[in-house]
Amino acid sequence: MSNSGSGSGSGRPIGLAVIGAGYWGPNLIRNAQATPALRVEWLCDLDEARARAVLGDYSTVRVSTSYRDVLADPAVQAVAIATPAATHFELVAAALEAGKHVLVEKPITAAYAEAVKLVELAERTGLTLMCDHTFCYMPVVRHIREMIHGGELGDIRFFDSVRINLGLVQPDVDVLWDLAPHDLSILDFILPPGVRPVSVSAHGADPLGTGRACLAYLVLRLSNGAIAHVHVNWLSPTKVRTTIIGGSRRTLVWDDTNPAARLQVHDKGVDRIEDTTLDHDARREKLISYRMGDVVLPALPEREALRAVMAEFAEAIGAARPALTDGRAGLRVLELLEAASRSLELGGVAVAVGEQS
Amino acid sequence: MSNSGSGSGSGRPIGLAVIGAGYWGPNLIRNAQATPALRVEWLCDLDEARARAVLGDYSTVRVSTSYRDVLADPAVQAVAIATPAATHFELVAAALEAGKHVLVEKPITAAYAEAVKLVELAERTGLTLMCDHTFCYMPVVRHIREMIHGGELGDIRFFDSVRINLGLVQPDVDVLWDLAPHDLSILDFILPPGVRPVSVSAHGADPLGTGRACLAYLVLRLSNGAIAHVHVNWLSPTKVRTTIIGGSRRTLVWDDTNPAARLQVHDKGVDRIEDTTLDHDARREKLISYRMGDVVLPALPEREALRAVMAEFAEAIGAARPALTDGRAGLRVLELLEAASRSLELGGVAVAVGEQS
Amino acid sequence: MSNSGSGSGSGRPIGLAVIGAGYWGPNLIRNAQATPALRVEWLCDLDEARARAVLGDYSTVRVSTSYRDVLADPAVQAVAIATPAATHFELVAAALEAGKHVLVEKPITAAYAEAVKLVELAERTGLTLMCDHTFCYMPVVRHIREMIHGGELGDIRFFDSVRINLGLVQPDVDVLWDLAPHDLSILDFILPPGVRPVSVSAHGADPLGTGRACLAYLVLRLSNGAIAHVHVNWLSPTKVRTTIIGGSRRTLVWDDTNPAARLQVHDKGVDRIEDTTLDHDARREKLISYRMGDVVLPALPEREALRAVMAEFAEAIGAARPALTDGRAGLRVLELLEAASRSLELGGVAVAVGEQS
Amino acid sequence: MSNSGSGSGSGRPIGLAVIGAGYWGPNLIRNAQATPALRVEWLCDLDEARARAVLGDYSTVRVSTSYRDVLADPAVQAVAIATPAATHFELVAAALEAGKHVLVEKPITAAYAEAVKLVELAERTGLTLMCDHTFCYMPVVRHIREMIHGGELGDIRFFDSVRINLGLVQPDVDVLWDLAPHDLSILDFILPPGVRPVSVSAHGADPLGTGRACLAYLVLRLSNGAIAHVHVNWLSPTKVRTTIIGGSRRTLVWDDTNPAARLQVHDKGVDRIEDTTLDHDARREKLISYRMGDVVLPALPEREALRAVMAEFAEAIGAARPALTDGRAGLRVLELLEAASRSLELGGVAVAVGEQS
Repeated sequence: MSNSGSGSGSGRPIGLAVIGAGYWGPNLIRNAQATPALRVEWLCDLDEARARAVLGDYSTVRVSTSYRDVLADPAVQAVAIATPAATHFELVAAALEAGKHVLVEKPITAAYAEAVKLVELAERTGLTLMCDHTFCYMPVVRHIREMIHGGELGDIRFFDSVRINLGLVQPDVDVLWDLAPHDLSILDFILPPGVRPVSVSAHGADPLGTGRACLAYLVLRLSNGAIAHVHVNWLSPTKVRTTIIGGSRRTLVWDDTNPAARLQVHDKGVDRIEDTTLDHDARREKLISYRMGDVVLPALPEREALRAVMAEFAEAIGAARPALTDGRAGLRVLELLEAASRSLELGGVAVAVGEQS
Repeated sequence: MSNSGSGSGSGRPIGLAVIGAGYWGPNLIRNAQATPALRVEWLCDLDEARARAVLGDYSTVRVSTSYRDVLADPAVQAVAIATPAATHFELVAAALEAGKHVLVEKPITAAYAEAVKLVELAERTGLTLMCDHTFCYMPVVRHIREMIHGGELGDIRFFDSVRINLGLVQPDVDVLWDLAPHDLSILDFILPPGVRPVSVSAHGADPLGTGRACLAYLVLRLSNGAIAHVHVNWLSPTKVRTTIIGGSRRTLVWDDTNPAARLQVHDKGVDRIEDTTLDHDARREKLISYRMGDVVLPALPEREALRAVMAEFAEAIGAARPALTDGRAGLRVLELLEAASRSLELGGVAVAVGEQS
Repeated sequence: MSNSGSGSGSGRPIGLAVIGAGYWGPNLIRNAQATPALRVEWLCDLDEARARAVLGDYSTVRVSTSYRDVLADPAVQAVAIATPAATHFELVAAALEAGKHVLVEKPITAAYAEAVKLVELAERTGLTLMCDHTFCYMPVVRHIREMIHGGELGDIRFFDSVRINLGLVQPDVDVLWDLAPHDLSILDFILPPGVRPVSVSAHGADPLGTGRACLAYLVLRLSNGAIAHVHVNWLSPTKVRTTIIGGSRRTLVWDDTNPAARLQVHDKGVDRIEDTTLDHDARREKLISYRMGDVVLPALPEREALRAVMAEFAEAIGAARPALTDGRAGLRVLELLEAASRSLELGGVAVAVGEQS
Repeated sequence: MSNSGSGSGSGRPIGLAVIGAGYWGPNLIRNAQATPALRVEWLCDLDEARARAVLGDYSTVRVSTSYRDVLADPAVQAVAIATPAATHFELVAAALEAGKHVLVEKPITAAYAEAVKLVELAERTGLTLMCDHTFCYMPVVRHIREMIHGGELGDIRFFDSVRINLGLVQPDVDVLWDLAPHDLSILDFILPPGVRPVSVSAHGADPLGTGRACLAYLVLRLSNGAIAHVHVNWLSPTKVRTTIIGGSRRTLVWDDTNPAARLQVHDKGVDRIEDTTLDHDARREKLISYRMGDVVLPALPEREALRAVMAEFAEAIGAARPALTDGRAGLRVLELLEAASRSLELGGVAVAVGEQS
């Protein structure tokens, strides 16, 4: 099975089936329909009425309750999968085996070992396997990545992300698996080459007695000595989505609830002064100076992230190249999630990343 | 030595000496001068010029460089100590031994064992030993305490406090000992009777290589199963001072940088539904319902906290009763700080509170 | 021509044509499609490609470039018109004459005299003529109206509305006709019965030399002695949408850019004290006392206003009753706009409302 | 009488008396005491107890109830006057006649004709007459002035200032005379040379029946065709202090309630396109383009404005030069206030500036 014949290079749109008409499915449908390089053929869900309701009364898109039928349709060259994580392995494997390119929701699978098999299968078949790490396609995240990779922040010193809101307590996942993939995929995406998380500590609480953590704190140690911290919480009555990324040259504050100042670039910070003529105490006292500078709010385009996800999916298929957030990115995020879960069980002990692989 | 003869009951103001003209001393001087029940006699500092500069050119308050001279003055019945923590033990002990009431900055001493001696000395002599846990005297914190003790929040489920800003890297203490005493003294103050921290985990980082942590995360487990988290940071270019206190009935959001909505009382949250007629899965799914309700911003007086500290100090002396934030409160906070430091050294391992006592 | 036979009472959806595929048309299409009581039959625009682009590649809705053809279709019982204001008179008249119910964008027509004819025509034929005063269907505006009509604010004392942003300088209308209809329709909607604007003063400026006002200030005197002020501005780099409504009992602050505190109900204000025992000066000084009270942020549903517009349109047709924002509401807003334009020409002189009718 | 002998050039501090221990007097005292170039000799108030209370129990500053005694003291070379406006003429005149330099609160007097006499008297005697236009000494206002005078904004197109809060209804002045002097003095201070207000329209309301306007709107037409608008309001439960200054190159947004983003410099706006090859309609449509650019928040020092007022007062005396906000600045602001009051009486008619002089 190979990528040849996908037809996407010829300018004809890529036939797409969306599988899963739940929470995220409607967003996939809407954005895929708005992407010229894609042609939505099917919406597939076990609940036919639900699928029809998502499409509404005016749609020419077909509905199916059988993913096997959909995969058998030669008009379908690619699938976008938005079902519960526990079903990802079976569905992605079936799609790849049927020669279809795959866009899959986070997390890529429920278990690392399964995800490895999928990545290897995609690589063997030459098919595109892309993870829908939606946040990586926000203009603000692209901008942050470019600033970091371009050296404008200097060395990364700390990363602090808060993602809290009143959320739906999920029947199948804890808050870590529900929300932290966003922060971890962003972290994975923006870190400069060579800097990776090396350990994870996780602390959680289940104050409602639901059987799973409803709020959690993650501490990640990075290979360059920096620290990353993530606070995810379903029980906060107030919505906070703020990420601070401290660098040796500049520090970024991204407040996603503040459209008028979504990204602040602070040209102020704290420096070490190296003055070897001072005695020990004086050096210590003067070690640190302060720079106060202007703050810049870069102009960012207003663009829906999922639109860019769809465009990237189509482009990666057309060019037969790995997507920006490919299966390996999904693997890296999954590895962090599994380490976090183990730490949670162990009461917060630091778990090395890569132990489970 | 006893409290008799302090003269405070007679309506005559209590003679006060302030020791330490550094960062906090000027605030003590200004607020003590505005307190009718106190009479400021001395400002004492090793650096006489600094003390004179604090008083300015128009003051009748006397300056001394010798705390022993000041303690020998019979016009002085009380002292307020705002010197580095390492000097607290010597100064407080000397003051108590001289029969003076003491107000001391946080932390009460640099070491738990020393603080125990001071508390016992104060109790033996019948003198007031009060810790300047300033934040406990903010109107908003008093209001929060009253709501919690009055049961309006229900059971406390989580406490999350963020205190970050661009701060001065201190020559003698890390960010934990500089900033976390505020959060820990607030937590100590507002928790309902019987609920106490039982363990502390701390994670920190020193990305500037200053030799001490410049940002830190604390996780405290409380005796009722709740979790508390504190984020303190000297390297944040943006100032955040937000505390969220989740209860089973209501949740509070205190944003101290937002005077127009400093305290929000959210009457919405997440409940467990106990419906034993449902099967296991349905119960799980329906376990949680959502209440959406109004948010109330209670009217709070605008009052400087340190003014209330001074009034409480004078009242406690006059009534020969323990101050609201007495030496024992200082001990409890110190115990948490020491546990946090030990956890920091151990790489984040949970340290039981009370091990060191 | 009469309303009988519209079929809407029978439970079958009302056949709808949308005329105009410009800025607002796509929103009408999307919301009409989501309204079960409506059945979208046509999208009509002189530019067929534009209409097709609005519908996208997956729609079963038909496209036409002839509104006459559309009006001739017996499957069409109602039309929604989103074309430039200058075309409204012709289109609405044609639709009513063809026996169709009409929803028309603001302003109802470009001239008062024309609008009077349309309103009379609708009343004569028994057809529904509704103005799309979208903002009146926001949950927050409904809530404000209910509070005012229920007496919770007491007497209305002032109304201050700011609607500024970087806006598109329009080729055919000034900022007054572009933005102020929103504020004036809201004012019309929420004022208690019997209170009406009696005069309008308008001040504007055209600092870019575009030939029309790009920012304007309106002052309206109300029949109860209150004042209303509206600031509309296309040149502000920052977006402000704040309305303050002062009452004798409570004051509302509606900040539409702040979803977390969209509506604030302030139970504080300023009262007159009537104490006749005081002499003149003392009375004056004590005339005013201050109440400080809690602020309440009422829970409001999150609902798209245009969805409610569509529902109201369908209900009004079905019940053969005037819509909440009927043609007469459109007339009242238009009257204010014309008075404002006249005042603008006269350099800000107060123009009585109703002079032109 | 001349300025010689003031002694300020010799490095000895200037002897100062503060007259008026009401709302603003304590701030003058505090800041004058912190200014090395000044030496506070007296606090003078008809109410001796009030003056003593302002000084507190620890001050060496003398109290007097007689301004004549104070003016007779040769140690006094300058006075700062913070009494009700109606008393300014008598007090300033007496001080100047006694050879004293004068700093006077806004407005300089209650009537233009009186102020002219004072300005002429000061110029004749060579004494410094300075108006305490405090806001002009805020770092942010200095920065704005420098940007405008340096051409960074391009041509000024509009100025919009909102200064609203729950305020004390004053016994002697309306909201216009209480609050608008701030905005008008800022406008006077920042406008580029040669641009002046030429007319004023004012609309006000007295919804409490207090006998004076409690909210008011001012429209000023400037000599370059720009418009300025000021909204002052004692009845707003929410505090807004926002000034937008639109220029042809950049636009400023100054939000004084937001310390983290007090001044925003927007490098985006709306331009005219001059393309003479287009026909009339196309030109009109394309007349305007949009620039979207970064926003810069300039670093501004944190400094109390009144401290800078005191320093400027001392420097102007020492250098025998006009103060930055001299008597003529006070006159210009007074002229605008009087024109505004006349417009208010006339129901909003535009009143030319300079008619009364």
